[in-house]
Amino acid sequence: MDKLSSLARYKASCPFLGRTKQSTLRTLCTSTSPRFPTLSRLTEKATKCPVMGPALSIRSEQMVKGYASVAGNADVQKIHEQKGVHLPDPARADISKCPHANAARAAARMAEDLAGAKEKAAAKKASPAKAESSTSTCPFHAAADMSKTSKKPVPSGLFDYEQFYNTELDKKHEDKSYRYFNNINRLAEKFPVAHTGDVKEEVEVWCANDYLGMGNNPVVLETMHRTLNKYGHGAGGTRNIAGNGAWHLGLEAELASLHRKPAALVFSSCYVANDATLSTLGTKLPGCVFFSDTMNHASMIQGMRHSPAKRVLFKHNDLEDLEAKLASYPKETPKIIAFESVYSMCGSVGPIKEICDLAEKYGALTFLDEVHAVGLYGPRGAGVAEHLDFEAHLAAGQSPAPIPGSVMDRIDIITGTLGKAYGAIGGYIAGSTDFVDMIRSYAPGFIFTTSLPPVSVAGAQASIAYQKEWMGDRQLLGLNVRALKKRFADIDVPVVPGPSHIIPVLVGDAGLAKAASDRLLNEHNIYVQSINYPTVARGEERLRVTITPRHTVEQMDKLVNAVDETFTVLGINRIREWKAAGGRAGVGLPDDQVIPVEDVWTDEHLGLKDGSAPKQLRNGERAFVDSKAVNVTRGKFEKLLGKVDNAAATEKKVVVDLRAGMGMSGVDASVNAVHVPTPVAASA
Amino acid sequence: MDKLSSLARYKASCPFLGRTKQSTLRTLCTSTSPRFPTLSRLTEKATKCPVMGPALSIRSEQMVKGYASVAGNADVQKIHEQKGVHLPDPARADISKCPHANAARAAARMAEDLAGAKEKAAAKKASPAKAESSTSTCPFHAAADMSKTSKKPVPSGLFDYEQFYNTELDKKHEDKSYRYFNNINRLAEKFPVAHTGDVKEEVEVWCANDYLGMGNNPVVLETMHRTLNKYGHGAGGTRNIAGNGAWHLGLEAELASLHRKPAALVFSSCYVANDATLSTLGTKLPGCVFFSDTMNHASMIQGMRHSPAKRVLFKHNDLEDLEAKLASYPKETPKIIAFESVYSMCGSVGPIKEICDLAEKYGALTFLDEVHAVGLYGPRGAGVAEHLDFEAHLAAGQSPAPIPGSVMDRIDIITGTLGKAYGAIGGYIAGSTDFVDMIRSYAPGFIFTTSLPPVSVAGAQASIAYQKEWMGDRQLLGLNVRALKKRFADIDVPVVPGPSHIIPVLVGDAGLAKAASDRLLNEHNIYVQSINYPTVARGEERLRVTITPRHTVEQMDKLVNAVDETFTVLGINRIREWKAAGGRAGVGLPDDQVIPVEDVWTDEHLGLKDGSAPKQLRNGERAFVDSKAVNVTRGKFEKLLGKVDNAAATEKKVVVDLRAGMGMSGVDASVNAVHVPTPVAASA
Repeated sequence: MDKLSSLARYKASCPFLGRTKQSTLRTLCTSTSPRFPTLSRLTEKATKCPVMGPALSIRSEQMVKGYASVAGNADVQKIHEQKGVHLPDPARADISKCPHANAARAAARMAEDLAGAKEKAAAKKASPAKAESSTSTCPFHAAADMSKTSKKPVPSGLFDYEQFYNTELDKKHEDKSYRYFNNINRLAEKFPVAHTGDVKEEVEVWCANDYLGMGNNPVVLETMHRTLNKYGHGAGGTRNIAGNGAWHLGLEAELASLHRKPAALVFSSCYVANDATLSTLGTKLPGCVFFSDTMNHASMIQGMRHSPAKRVLFKHNDLEDLEAKLASYPKETPKIIAFESVYSMCGSVGPIKEICDLAEKYGALTFLDEVHAVGLYGPRGAGVAEHLDFEAHLAAGQSPAPIPGSVMDRIDIITGTLGKAYGAIGGYIAGSTDFVDMIRSYAPGFIFTTSLPPVSVAGAQASIAYQKEWMGDRQLLGLNVRALKKRFADIDVPVVPGPSHIIPVLVGDAGLAKAASDRLLNEHNIYVQSINYPTVARGEERLRVTITPRHTVEQMDKLVNAVDETFTVLGINRIREWKAAGGRAGVGLPDDQVIPVEDVWTDEHLGLKDGSAPKQLRNGERAFVDSKAVNVTRGKFEKLLGKVDNAAATEKKVVVDLRAGMGMSGVDASVNAVHVPTPVAASA
Repeated sequence: MDKLSSLARYKASCPFLGRTKQSTLRTLCTSTSPRFPTLSRLTEKATKCPVMGPALSIRSEQMVKGYASVAGNADVQKIHEQKGVHLPDPARADISKCPHANAARAAARMAEDLAGAKEKAAAKKASPAKAESSTSTCPFHAAADMSKTSKKPVPSGLFDYEQFYNTELDKKHEDKSYRYFNNINRLAEKFPVAHTGDVKEEVEVWCANDYLGMGNNPVVLETMHRTLNKYGHGAGGTRNIAGNGAWHLGLEAELASLHRKPAALVFSSCYVANDATLSTLGTKLPGCVFFSDTMNHASMIQGMRHSPAKRVLFKHNDLEDLEAKLASYPKETPKIIAFESVYSMCGSVGPIKEICDLAEKYGALTFLDEVHAVGLYGPRGAGVAEHLDFEAHLAAGQSPAPIPGSVMDRIDIITGTLGKAYGAIGGYIAGSTDFVDMIRSYAPGFIFTTSLPPVSVAGAQASIAYQKEWMGDRQLLGLNVRALKKRFADIDVPVVPGPSHIIPVLVGDAGLAKAASDRLLNEHNIYVQSINYPTVARGEERLRVTITPRHTVEQMDKLVNAVDETFTVLGINRIREWKAAGGRAGVGLPDDQVIPVEDVWTDEHLGLKDGSAPKQLRNGERAFVDSKAVNVTRGKFEKLLGKVDNAAATEKKVVVDLRAGMGMSGVDASVNAVHVPTPVAASA
C-alpha cells in the first residue's frame, strides 16, 4: 500500500476535514496538545475519531522511519513555504531537522497510546452534548464541539482570556522556546533503558538525573514494597495534621546526620524547599539583602523574588565581584549568599570554601544548594562541601557530629534533593536547630501542604542510608564521566569543560540542538534532551549528557558513535571549528586562555592510586550491590517493618477478597481477588 | 521502684545535669526539638547519652499513665510557678491540660524510637570533635559541644542570625501558635488505626484527609506494587528532561476526563498548583485584579501575593460584597475570582453557580479550588461543581465531553489534589487547552522541578479511576457524616454547622482545644488534631473531625463517648452554653438567626429514597470493594503492566543476587539476596 494512500482515503471520507479550512488544519497540525504534549492538536482530535483512529495506527507504523506528518508530506512542504523555513544548506537538509516531521514522529509514538484509550471512544456513545445530527456520531466532531461549547463567547468590552493564552503560546513558538515533552518510561529491570509511548520501542536514556540508578536499587524497592504493604500510599495530611510519622522523622534524622547538622526538614521538592526557605528568610530578616550567583536555579530566584528583600546578582563563581558587592553594604545588614555547588547545566562547581571566608568576613549567611551533588560527592554522598574535606569525613564514619572548621560545618544552610541521585522525590534543608525550627514554624510552603507519602519517604531514606555506606557507585560514576569525556574529546566533539559529572555537549544553535536530540532518538534510540534558551544562553545550546555507574562500556560506544554520526550529518561544529571561531562556552579557547580544570573526584578518591577503583560494567553483567550497605539500610527499618529473614525465602500472599464486606450489590464474581504481594520479611 | 527514683538516680550521676543551670534546663525542657518535633530539646539530648538513654526507656513506660515530664514532677511545678500558669478551676485541674505534661507524654513516645537509634550512639566512638576529656566520652555532651561548635561566634557589629531565629520562635511560643507534631503512622491493614512513635501503641485516627481510605484501596496498592516493580521509584527528571512518561500523560488525561475539561496538568502538590497558577496568571495578565474569598487557603493567598496583581478580598461566600467589588473595576480589566468549593476548616461550601453568574456578568475568570471536594462530591467524584448537576453528570457516564451550561463547564479553572480523598500525592489544574498549555509553558513551579514518581502517579490514577466508577464510598461517607453530626448534637456537643463532610467540633479556646486533643490521644487513644489561630480565628478554636466510609459504628460510639467525657472533664462549652452566650461560629445562634443548612449530599443522592443506600460498617466487617470499578481500573493499566490473570493465583518471586555483578570486594556472603516481590500479573 502506498504510504499516503490509507490516510488520503480516510481523509476524503471525513466530513470534518472536508469542511475545515486548510489554514485551520495547519494551525491544529502545528500547535501542540497540552493534554498529550507530544501530540499535535490535530492528531489528538483525530485519534478520537473511530475512522481516523485506525488510520493513525497504520500510519504510526509507516512513520517509524522516514519523513511524514499526520497532515502528509505535501502539507508539511506547504507549511514550510508558508512559514518561510529555509534549510540552510543541502548537506544539512536532513528531514530529521524539520520540527514538523519531528513533531509528527512524536505524534506517531503517541497515537498508538491514544488509539487504545477506550474511554475516549466511549464519548461517542455517551456524549450528552446535543450536537447537530450530521456530526453527533463522531467523537472527532464532538471534540470540535467541545472546544466550541467550552469556550465562552466574549461579549464586547470584556477581556478575552483565550485570546490572551493563545498569544502567550505564540510567543513561545516564535522564539523556539516552546517545549515538546518526550514520552520516556524508564524501566527498572533494564536501567538505563526506557520505553517510549510505544511499550515495544526501547531507547537508552543519557540525560536522566537518577544519577546512580538508585530508583531501582534492590534495597530501596524492597523497603518500598514493605512500606506500601504496611502503611499504604498517601500521608493523609499535613505534617501538623495526621501527616507526620516515624518515616518523616526518620528521614530528617538521616539527612541531618548526612550533613552533620543538628537538624533537617523535608519538603515536597527542593524547588519548594528553596522557594519556601529563601522567601521566608527574606521576608523575616529585617532589611535582608540577597547575594545571588547569576547561574542560580529558578527555584532560588523565585524564593528571593517572593520576598521583599533586595537581590544583588554577582557574576557566576566570581569572588571579586561578590566581595565588592558584599562590602558595599553595612556590616550589620543581614545578608544571604545564595549559590550552588554543582551548576546543573554547565557542570561548573562553586568556590564553597572561599565563599565561606567572605561570608564570615562580611557577616553573611551561606545558603548552598547541593541539589546536583548530594549522593554524588563526598565519601558518604553528602555533597561537594563534604568532598572538600574528604579524608576527615571518611575518618569520621557515620557520626552525626560536625567536624569543626570543615567546609560543611561552615555552611549555614544546605539544601538538597531526594529526586536526583537518590532516585526518589522531595527536597530538604539542613542547618542549625533554631534555623530549621524557624522555617518549620513560618514557611507556608512547608506548613500548608500534604506531606510526602511514607512509601516515598522510606525509599528516599533507604537510598541515602545505602549511599552513606557505599562509596563504590560514586567512584564508578566518576570513572565513567572521565571515560566518556575522553571519548568525546577523541572524536573532537565539544564538551563544556567542568570539574563535575555533568557532560554538556555543545551544539551552539537552538534548531540544531533539537534536531540532534531528535535524530539521536529517532535514528539511534538514544535519548538526550536538548537544552535551549532560556535554560542556557543563546548560542550555547547543548545536549546535556549524564552517565551513571550502570551504563555499560558497550552503551557508551553506541552513544559516542551516534553523537559522531549526528554531528556529521547535521554539520554541527566540532572543537576545531569552535577554536577557529575563537571559542565558545569554554570550548576551543585560545591556548593562553584555557584554565585547567581538575575533577572534584581526584585519582586518589577514585581509587586509581591504590588500585581499588571499581571496573566499568559490560553488557550482560549485573550491577553491583553492596551487601554491607544493604544490611545497614535494612537495620534502619527493622523497628517499623521487622527483620528481614533471608533464610525464609518464601513470600506471603495477601489476598483481598472483593466479595467480602458488606454484601452490597454490583459485585462481579469473576473478579474475586486483588493480589497484594508481601515480601517475606514484612513485619512477620 | 519509685516512679522518680530511677530518673533521679541517673540524674545525680550525670556531670552535665549537675553543672547546668536550672534555668537552662528549663529552657531545654520546654522548647521543642525541630529534628524530632515531638521531643523537647532536653529529651533529644538525653536520648543520646548512654546513661540517660536506658533511663528514658524505663521512664517511657512509667509515663504511659500519669503526670510526669522528663525533668520530673517537681520541675514542672516550678515551671508552672515561674510561668504563672494558673489552672482555672479545680474541676479543670486535670493533668492532661498541662502543656509540659503533654509534651513529656509525646516525648516519652519518641524516646523509645530514639533510644534505638544506634547511629546516634555511634557518635560516641567516632566523634572527631576534640572535646575536653571530661566530656568526650559522653555523646550527651558531644551533642552539647555540637551546638557549641556549629554555632559561629558573632563578631561585634555583625547580625546575629541564631539570636534572630530564637526570637522568632519565642513569638510562636508566646502566642501559643507553636506547633508540636504528633507521631502518627496510619496502618493500611487496620485503617483508620495508626501507631504512634511506639509501634505497639495504636490510636484511632479521626482527622486525616485520606477521606475515603483510598490510600490502601487494594487496586491502588496492586497497581503501585506492579508499577514499582516495572518502573522503579523516582521519575528521574523534570517533565521536559526524562521525567515525562505514559504515567503522567495518563493521569492528566484521567483528570481532564474527570472534570470534562479539554486539558489538565499535574504538579508536585496542589499548594504548588495554586501558587504557580495564580502567580503566573497574575504576572502575565495585564493589569489583572484578583477577587479573593477571605477564607481562601494559604496556597492561593501565596500565589496571588507572588504576582504584582492587585488582590481584593471579599467577605466569605458573600455575593453582594463580591459583586460590589467586581463592579468597581472597568469591564475590560482582567479579573480572577479565586474561591473554594469546600472550605476545609469550617466546612462551608462556596456559591459556585452564583459566582459563575457574576463572573460572566463582569468578565472575570473563575478559579475554583476543589481540593477538599474531589473524590467526595458528584456522581463520579469530580467535586461540588459536578454535584450541582448530579443527574446530568450521572447520565453522561464517563464521557470526557463537557455538559454545556453545567456549573462544571462554566468554571474556567478547577484545581484539585491527589493527596486527600484520592489518598495519594500531588495536585493539578484542569481547564481549557490553551490555558493549561500556557501554565505548562510559563510557570516555573511546574517547569523546574522533578516530576512525581510513576508509582505515585499510578496510585493516584488508579484511585481516581476507581472512584469515578464507584459512588458507594461517597454515599457511605455522606451517611456517616450525618450520623456523627447527629450523635454530637444528641449529647449537646457543638459542631460548626455546614453542608459538607467536615465536622468542626467547636472548643473556643486555644489551650482547651490542645488539651482536648491531647486528652483524646492520651486517655482514649483517639487522634483528632486541634486547630488553633492562625488557621482559625481566635475564640473559634476547634477539633476538626473527619470521618470515612471505613470508620465503624463501634469506633463512632467510642469517639462520641470520648468527646463527651473530655468536654465534661475539661469543662468545654456545650451548645447550651454557646446559646446562653449569644452563639459563636454559627453554633447556638438565636433561633431567628439560624440559617438552615442543607447537605450537599441529599437524601436522594445518598440512596435513602430508593433504599439503595449502603450500610455502615461494623467492627469485624471488611470494607466493600467494587469489582466492576476494580476491573475498569485494571483495564487502564493493561497496556503498561499487562493483564491481571485472576486464575493464576501464584506469585512470581524476583531475587536480586547481591553476589552477582562485578565481583567487587566487600560482599558479605551471609546476605545474598534482596527479595523484590512481584505480583502475579506484572507484565507477564
